[in-house]
Amino acid sequence: MNKLRVGAIGSGYWGPNLIRNFVDLPDSELVVVADMRQERLDHMKRLYPSIEITTDYHDLLTMGLDAVVIATPPFTHFQIAKDCLEHGLSCMIEKPITTDSKQAEALVELAEQRGLKLMVGNTFEYNVAVHKLRDLIASGELGDVYYIDAVRTNLGLYQRNLNVMWDLAPHDISILLHVLSMDPVSVSAQGGKNITPSIHDVVYMHMQFPNNIMAHIHVSWLHPRKDRAITVVGSKKMVVYDDVEPLEKIKIYDKGVDAPPYADTFADFQFSYRYGDVITPYIKFTEPLRMECQHFVDCVKNGKRPNTDGVVGWKIVKILEAAERSLQNGGTQEAVNLADIKLAEPAL
Amino acid sequence: MNKLRVGAIGSGYWGPNLIRNFVDLPDSELVVVADMRQERLDHMKRLYPSIEITTDYHDLLTMGLDAVVIATPPFTHFQIAKDCLEHGLSCMIEKPITTDSKQAEALVELAEQRGLKLMVGNTFEYNVAVHKLRDLIASGELGDVYYIDAVRTNLGLYQRNLNVMWDLAPHDISILLHVLSMDPVSVSAQGGKNITPSIHDVVYMHMQFPNNIMAHIHVSWLHPRKDRAITVVGSKKMVVYDDVEPLEKIKIYDKGVDAPPYADTFADFQFSYRYGDVITPYIKFTEPLRMECQHFVDCVKNGKRPNTDGVVGWKIVKILEAAERSLQNGGTQEAVNLADIKLAEPAL
Amino acid sequence: MNKLRVGAIGSGYWGPNLIRNFVDLPDSELVVVADMRQERLDHMKRLYPSIEITTDYHDLLTMGLDAVVIATPPFTHFQIAKDCLEHGLSCMIEKPITTDSKQAEALVELAEQRGLKLMVGNTFEYNVAVHKLRDLIASGELGDVYYIDAVRTNLGLYQRNLNVMWDLAPHDISILLHVLSMDPVSVSAQGGKNITPSIHDVVYMHMQFPNNIMAHIHVSWLHPRKDRAITVVGSKKMVVYDDVEPLEKIKIYDKGVDAPPYADTFADFQFSYRYGDVITPYIKFTEPLRMECQHFVDCVKNGKRPNTDGVVGWKIVKILEAAERSLQNGGTQEAVNLADIKLAEPAL
Amino acid sequence: MNKLRVGAIGSGYWGPNLIRNFVDLPDSELVVVADMRQERLDHMKRLYPSIEITTDYHDLLTMGLDAVVIATPPFTHFQIAKDCLEHGLSCMIEKPITTDSKQAEALVELAEQRGLKLMVGNTFEYNVAVHKLRDLIASGELGDVYYIDAVRTNLGLYQRNLNVMWDLAPHDISILLHVLSMDPVSVSAQGGKNITPSIHDVVYMHMQFPNNIMAHIHVSWLHPRKDRAITVVGSKKMVVYDDVEPLEKIKIYDKGVDAPPYADTFADFQFSYRYGDVITPYIKFTEPLRMECQHFVDCVKNGKRPNTDGVVGWKIVKILEAAERSLQNGGTQEAVNLADIKLAEPAL
Repeated sequence: MNKLRVGAIGSGYWGPNLIRNFVDLPDSELVVVADMRQERLDHMKRLYPSIEITTDYHDLLTMGLDAVVIATPPFTHFQIAKDCLEHGLSCMIEKPITTDSKQAEALVELAEQRGLKLMVGNTFEYNVAVHKLRDLIASGELGDVYYIDAVRTNLGLYQRNLNVMWDLAPHDISILLHVLSMDPVSVSAQGGKNITPSIHDVVYMHMQFPNNIMAHIHVSWLHPRKDRAITVVGSKKMVVYDDVEPLEKIKIYDKGVDAPPYADTFADFQFSYRYGDVITPYIKFTEPLRMECQHFVDCVKNGKRPNTDGVVGWKIVKILEAAERSLQNGGTQEAVNLADIKLAEPAL
Repeated sequence: MNKLRVGAIGSGYWGPNLIRNFVDLPDSELVVVADMRQERLDHMKRLYPSIEITTDYHDLLTMGLDAVVIATPPFTHFQIAKDCLEHGLSCMIEKPITTDSKQAEALVELAEQRGLKLMVGNTFEYNVAVHKLRDLIASGELGDVYYIDAVRTNLGLYQRNLNVMWDLAPHDISILLHVLSMDPVSVSAQGGKNITPSIHDVVYMHMQFPNNIMAHIHVSWLHPRKDRAITVVGSKKMVVYDDVEPLEKIKIYDKGVDAPPYADTFADFQFSYRYGDVITPYIKFTEPLRMECQHFVDCVKNGKRPNTDGVVGWKIVKILEAAERSLQNGGTQEAVNLADIKLAEPAL
Repeated sequence: MNKLRVGAIGSGYWGPNLIRNFVDLPDSELVVVADMRQERLDHMKRLYPSIEITTDYHDLLTMGLDAVVIATPPFTHFQIAKDCLEHGLSCMIEKPITTDSKQAEALVELAEQRGLKLMVGNTFEYNVAVHKLRDLIASGELGDVYYIDAVRTNLGLYQRNLNVMWDLAPHDISILLHVLSMDPVSVSAQGGKNITPSIHDVVYMHMQFPNNIMAHIHVSWLHPRKDRAITVVGSKKMVVYDDVEPLEKIKIYDKGVDAPPYADTFADFQFSYRYGDVITPYIKFTEPLRMECQHFVDCVKNGKRPNTDGVVGWKIVKILEAAERSLQNGGTQEAVNLADIKLAEPAL
Repeated sequence: MNKLRVGAIGSGYWGPNLIRNFVDLPDSELVVVADMRQERLDHMKRLYPSIEITTDYHDLLTMGLDAVVIATPPFTHFQIAKDCLEHGLSCMIEKPITTDSKQAEALVELAEQRGLKLMVGNTFEYNVAVHKLRDLIASGELGDVYYIDAVRTNLGLYQRNLNVMWDLAPHDISILLHVLSMDPVSVSAQGGKNITPSIHDVVYMHMQFPNNIMAHIHVSWLHPRKDRAITVVGSKKMVVYDDVEPLEKIKIYDKGVDAPPYADTFADFQFSYRYGDVITPYIKFTEPLRMECQHFVDCVKNGKRPNTDGVVGWKIVKILEAAERSLQNGGTQEAVNLADIKLAEPAL
């Protein structure tokens, strides 16, 4: 098969990274970039003189492309992806896949009907550090997972018309679903709207998974430090994945706590802590975004279902909608039911 | 006036620190130590051969002491303090002051009736770094406070019959009340019971203060890292107080975010971030516990009301009780009313 | 004037960064890349389809270029730059400019004779953090400079035929000359040859500057940590420039030590330490390499002398030659005389 | 045997730590403290009411003591220790044992003649982290040791009449001798005298050991950061012992570099780096000073030779004297001969 012919829609904050990868991958060709802003297009054209540019994404629908990658503001994802799928183009869409779960479901169904690939850009699911987390849990090395704590904060990069939870938490939710291989059963959220009256800029989410596993996510646009840490506490070991660390991203703490055999004596009571080594496993770095783009190319060319297919994107939107209801109602517990989508074929 | 004659009840984990200070302060004399464990008493006697020791704290009631310091398990605080106050002894009690707010109220009233001093050992309120935080807020240097995030985690040191919230959160609650000079209006809490069936070992608390100020506290006995950080986000500046840092405990971030003048254009939207210097102010170190013990001696000798009097201890217990109700009910919002105690005289 | 027509020689480790910048700068055009390795050229062609490629750099001499940028192994710099200058092309050369000071001097003279620009790629002299260091010293804010300590270590990236001092120390030497605005008077060096019998892989250099200012440089290819720190100790303040820190690269310590008025009493003796705040000034980031490339374009177009001209490159080679003599002789003090080059015009 | 009767001479900066330990150890009794400053003695008496105090150390010579611990200024060590040994008292002396190697030798001989114990307070040789370093080297786990880099810097605590090398480097030298189980063959040193005209306040030492092992020590009283790091680079693994880290003091880097089989091809040359895990071994903490004091008590009671006997103290003074000659002569290489002391019995 020839090189996959790819078009890019959106070349603002994240788009250029996608464009660079599809230019550089050996079995894809980046044919055209669409953006409403001529100055962004001029910049892209200067970097890659052979590409075509257009301010109207509809031009891409009839250029004989195989696929598009969509990195526009989230509320535009649905209409653009729908147009592309209806014209026979597979779609890779930045997260969140849509801002409404019904729209996400419609895209999933449309892609199934047309036999096209629909993928959401959950970059962290292509990150080797996240794979390591998943493997540590799946292999039983951590023991039973007690809870996961996720922090993702920094100062700024506000989104318009979208609160911080919809902007940042999709990363953490996709990581949680990936490493636990489970869907949550309920969620609650509380937060603050400090800068713009109607937009939450700091949110704390609480999620309950099966087996009494708890997860907590702290996202903020209003924080003096850039923190990116995911802590998994298990009955045997604990792990911290600190994405801000340049080299030692994963640390495995061989510490644990055993419940004592009895606790009804009057004497002071000592849990038995198992202290042990801390290990930073060597992880061979590969650029997650490149893995992600390569995976999309492979799936379209070989008819495989993407690991982060539209159903995963839909699940995350469903969770965010439940959390949004909780946020608006002052932190109520909201059930999450992720079993009701029609799935034509299971993900492998 | 002569040296204050002080007795210590409890010489386990924290008691020896109190004992050392009352031995060393120039205007106090540590006369006697009570503990149920003879081996702890023997150890104290070896260090300080001139003190008396006893396994029965009732012996202290008739030794002509001026005051006692109580560092026993929390559920014993009420009975011991009541006995001491009824025998005319002023009391300094470790946090939490009691495990029931009605008991705390009873101690406050008893001390008032007898004209004795009742103080709770909120060590952080005698910490110069916390004073710096309070001053930064009170002076308006931070602008409006948006939210405060507190993390206090480590592996271990379980308490018997007391969950992690009652054990660790009193520190953070006392800091919040102190630096904001406000009482919360509501609280909620969620958490996990992982080691012992009935004891929460990780808890996330959410507190709402007047003026839309939000606070969030994460306490855990099950964490691979020892974290001790309080982040205050204001409209003008942000501050991190990191108690794990050996020297640079307070960092002031001269960064902020201004709301834009309008937000209804279609074009991408840029908040104006004010970046600026990060300043680590020099703070002359004084040992907080020594300040606390000296303050107690001063209050008893000079008839002053302690900064951390019984009412402060009572407020924290009230907040913990509301949080406990929320914790048992899956995270419900619980109102907190701290206006209903009878206060004979106002704190200065 | 039209866009500067630039050719690149060498597209291995560092060359692609230069190529990207000259492609992207608005007033330069990257016309051609030369490299002996066809696979590197193919990669460049895929990224930038409009450029020409060749395995023989001599092709560039007659293509009507204005300038070349040379990023080949150091021992090839002289012959390539000589050929280019003789064909009327201005040259930007990676550090070290040559591996022999006589060759560097010859290039300086050749460029002067032909009225061409000769620049060495001392990237750190285009780094805003280094400018901040220089300004702190020049303004007197640090007081008298006592000493500068520089550490530059990591595991790996060996060079063939070149020891670690020639590979890494040019960065630190160029920073020292830049921030002190002085030339050293003597140098010594000691080190170890651990992996390859004849190649030093760890070196400690000691430099003496006028006014009793001392500098010490530790470079290593054999170190478990990537360290990049420059510490300037002055009589009033101290500064650390830590290039590994992602955000807070410069920290100014408002601490100092005053000599006591007298020291002949028998009693224990107290220096007066002035403790104070630590300040991390906000530094607006600009990519140093882009500044460097822009500066080269400006100098060639406008006939200005580069800030890091061939004379600076020559000075660094002279210092390295003296240090190399010391290294071979077991750490002898070697005088450095940097006053003897014929300089047609002074740098501004 | 009864409790060892110990007297302490000097209760300034370090003495109180020694005193506390000898008070607290079960098989020693701290009988008396001597200090020239009455206010220090009063403070000691308040802490430990049962001890005796005196401003004249000669009083201790006839009090029936078994041993003394000497923590006075270094230039007074010799006379005090000589008096004590001549009166039959075993001596533990703070580092450096003396300020003159002939005096150290005289003390060694005197102790041998009298059958008394002479020990130098090299605390780090009783530190479990240092033991771990030694074991990693001795077991071959690190492979061949290439070099050791030691940094010990902070702001302040000047000593009178003693430069920074004599004050701080004894720690690093004792660690080097201990972990390598070797004596150096030569040493050089360079430094700066910035505050007091005749006193070096920053020194870089370079030491050569057998088997081409190199060591480098950086000590400074004039540094904005408190650094305490020892890096051991071996052919198989590398280790960093960072004493400023509160918990993870030892990190083992399973990285290394293999020399390539040949290096004469023209093509760019790739060393094979072996990357691997980073391991922070769990080390059960014991207070080094307590171990040291206990060891002294054991040696005196049981007639054992101390691990850090007078000969070790003498060796360190010999090395410092050679380094001092180098420092005065501008960095000359100075041979060190540590084979010429008369040793009555070998250390076990």
